[in-house]
Amino acid sequence: MLSIWLVLVSCIDFVLYSSAEEGLVFPSFDGRDRVLNVNERNYKKALKKYDMMCLLYHEPLPSDKELQQQFHMREMVLEQFRMNKNRHIEEESIYVFKDERVIEFDGELSADTLVEFLLDLLEDPVELISNPMEQRAFERMDEDIRLIGYFKGEDSEHYKAFQLTAEKFQPYVKFFATFDKGVAKQLTLKMNEIDFYEPFMDEPVTIPGKPNTEEEIVDFVNQHRRPTLRKLRAEDMFETWEDDMDGIHIVAFAEEEDPDGYEFLEILKEVARDNTKNPDLSIVWIDPDEFPLLTTYWEKTFKVDLFRPQIGVVNVTDADSVWLNMPNDEALPSAEELEDWIEDVLSGKVNTEDDDDDDDDDDDDEDFDDDSSDEDHYGSDDDD
Amino acid sequence: MLSIWLVLVSCIDFVLYSSAEEGLVFPSFDGRDRVLNVNERNYKKALKKYDMMCLLYHEPLPSDKELQQQFHMREMVLEQFRMNKNRHIEEESIYVFKDERVIEFDGELSADTLVEFLLDLLEDPVELISNPMEQRAFERMDEDIRLIGYFKGEDSEHYKAFQLTAEKFQPYVKFFATFDKGVAKQLTLKMNEIDFYEPFMDEPVTIPGKPNTEEEIVDFVNQHRRPTLRKLRAEDMFETWEDDMDGIHIVAFAEEEDPDGYEFLEILKEVARDNTKNPDLSIVWIDPDEFPLLTTYWEKTFKVDLFRPQIGVVNVTDADSVWLNMPNDEALPSAEELEDWIEDVLSGKVNTEDDDDDDDDDDDDEDFDDDSSDEDHYGSDDDD
Repeated sequence: MLSIWLVLVSCIDFVLYSSAEEGLVFPSFDGRDRVLNVNERNYKKALKKYDMMCLLYHEPLPSDKELQQQFHMREMVLEQFRMNKNRHIEEESIYVFKDERVIEFDGELSADTLVEFLLDLLEDPVELISNPMEQRAFERMDEDIRLIGYFKGEDSEHYKAFQLTAEKFQPYVKFFATFDKGVAKQLTLKMNEIDFYEPFMDEPVTIPGKPNTEEEIVDFVNQHRRPTLRKLRAEDMFETWEDDMDGIHIVAFAEEEDPDGYEFLEILKEVARDNTKNPDLSIVWIDPDEFPLLTTYWEKTFKVDLFRPQIGVVNVTDADSVWLNMPNDEALPSAEELEDWIEDVLSGKVNTEDDDDDDDDDDDDEDFDDDSSDEDHYGSDDDD
Repeated sequence: MLSIWLVLVSCIDFVLYSSAEEGLVFPSFDGRDRVLNVNERNYKKALKKYDMMCLLYHEPLPSDKELQQQFHMREMVLEQFRMNKNRHIEEESIYVFKDERVIEFDGELSADTLVEFLLDLLEDPVELISNPMEQRAFERMDEDIRLIGYFKGEDSEHYKAFQLTAEKFQPYVKFFATFDKGVAKQLTLKMNEIDFYEPFMDEPVTIPGKPNTEEEIVDFVNQHRRPTLRKLRAEDMFETWEDDMDGIHIVAFAEEEDPDGYEFLEILKEVARDNTKNPDLSIVWIDPDEFPLLTTYWEKTFKVDLFRPQIGVVNVTDADSVWLNMPNDEALPSAEELEDWIEDVLSGKVNTEDDDDDDDDDDDDEDFDDDSSDEDHYGSDDDD
């Protein structure tokens, strides 16, 4: 019994001002209800009326008081963000209707993340790179999947195919283009050639068969979309988590702003670069700094200390996990040791099931896959 | 008529689980009230009971329905984060009590920002740099004010003075130390020497008179705390905004992840480096990507397009502003042009008052301080 709810917003010009100096006033809820309950009779009209629209598709409201409060909280989060930007909205499943496209939002339900997602959708789908400084900016964005093509100019039919493809992947995959000979030369791009950059890799892969049609580019991106190392992003965190490898994720926690975390991450990138041809390997890197509300939950669920770098295997069905034993900050594994451990994970030698029913750790005597002692140390019965 | 509210939390082990796969479950409100109303009679007991505690000092609740809803929203945000980490809390003024210290939180009131702030307070006040990779991590953190000292070891009395100072500035100013000769040599640090790094500067300043006492370090940091270029951070945004220069801020908007924004930022850093000796100059850099909820508000208040880089002068009393005219992305000012404009701002030639009552732009004919045409273009009467 699902009902359709459409939450639409028209231009809103006022906010309640808090005290404090001018210039930093967060929009706050003004008490006016801007949520429109949409049903089978009025949704077509609504779709016609707005350029971009957000839809929450949800179950009927539960009568239970707690769940109502939960729902109320979500609604208030959304009220806050609706006051902020024209016409949009929500959760459970959230869809954005833009032109002919329907884009699912599968990220953290917070006003910040949702508004950022929508603002990203309003940007140009292709960014132009016109000089060496902009090229440097492009090269620094190594966390994202990026494509860059060299075209004659805005009127080129191949550029237009590239633009149409970009719209299909916006805002998840970044598309860049250059019309500048010098920039193209620096990036070793020939005319009408498109390079695909996997996150954290030094060298791009060229899409074969230039000039490429829209279909060819779409197919190539879809085939190469799961990278060897990917960073968990608030904007599509649930989508990433659902894209597991046979029910597991190899998860690395590392704070990039922390010296140990940075060091561990560099080792991880080295491993990823060495193993980029392995289709079975995809490591999810999580920077706990970017998910403060999940830090405690992860520490409890996985029984690890997130003030330090960690890498482990997580079963996504029951959140059971085993973690690589790193006794202290001075004992980060080398790239080789990490690769051995990852091999053991992929071969099933290290897995989340073996230790479930026994307490001895004689089944494992290698240095860096001694997970059982870790399990013992953090056993669920000493949860104090 | 202010009352004191203390919001205390004991260990909470349960959360309401949403559906979806395990591993990414945000804590959600379970309906249990964990807010403690503290008054003159019970606050001492509360202070004794908890290691770390957050206090919201607020006016009595208004009866007006809208304001109540606003307050209710805040409370729910706080409930969410209290479920997440033990003992803390809130807004209007929020104080954290930790050991002997009282730390004011003057940042964005969102669960994310507040929890991150509290987690930062739980970290070690001094981070150790022990090898070249960690040194590289240290060098990359150029957005923050950082101090680094070279000491004999953990037992050194000078290191202990450094540690005590670090606690006083945590989490706003970052403190690092090394006991490693090689790292010290690379950073050109002599034994017991402390270097102060201003954000975005290549070269540090050495605190004179080594070895330094706690008082000397505190004084030095306080004297050098307002940098030539500073990035607005959610964790102390209101504090930064209140630290204006005679009622104005020079504000630069630039998205670091955007090629144009990155290019503009590099020019800005060059200007900051050239003018770091000027005590009258402090530019606030805002990355709109980090404040999605404020983007629309800023665009309306300042009448600028934040999809492009901008620099302007803002009067913090009335949010009146003038912006440097940059006709298009290909016309970013050079460092020299930017310096000329900044000089005009500091001398009062460019200011927020001149254009208030006239529409002509003959009072200004230089290329890059032609703000009046900008004002006209974005006049408040064409707010459609």
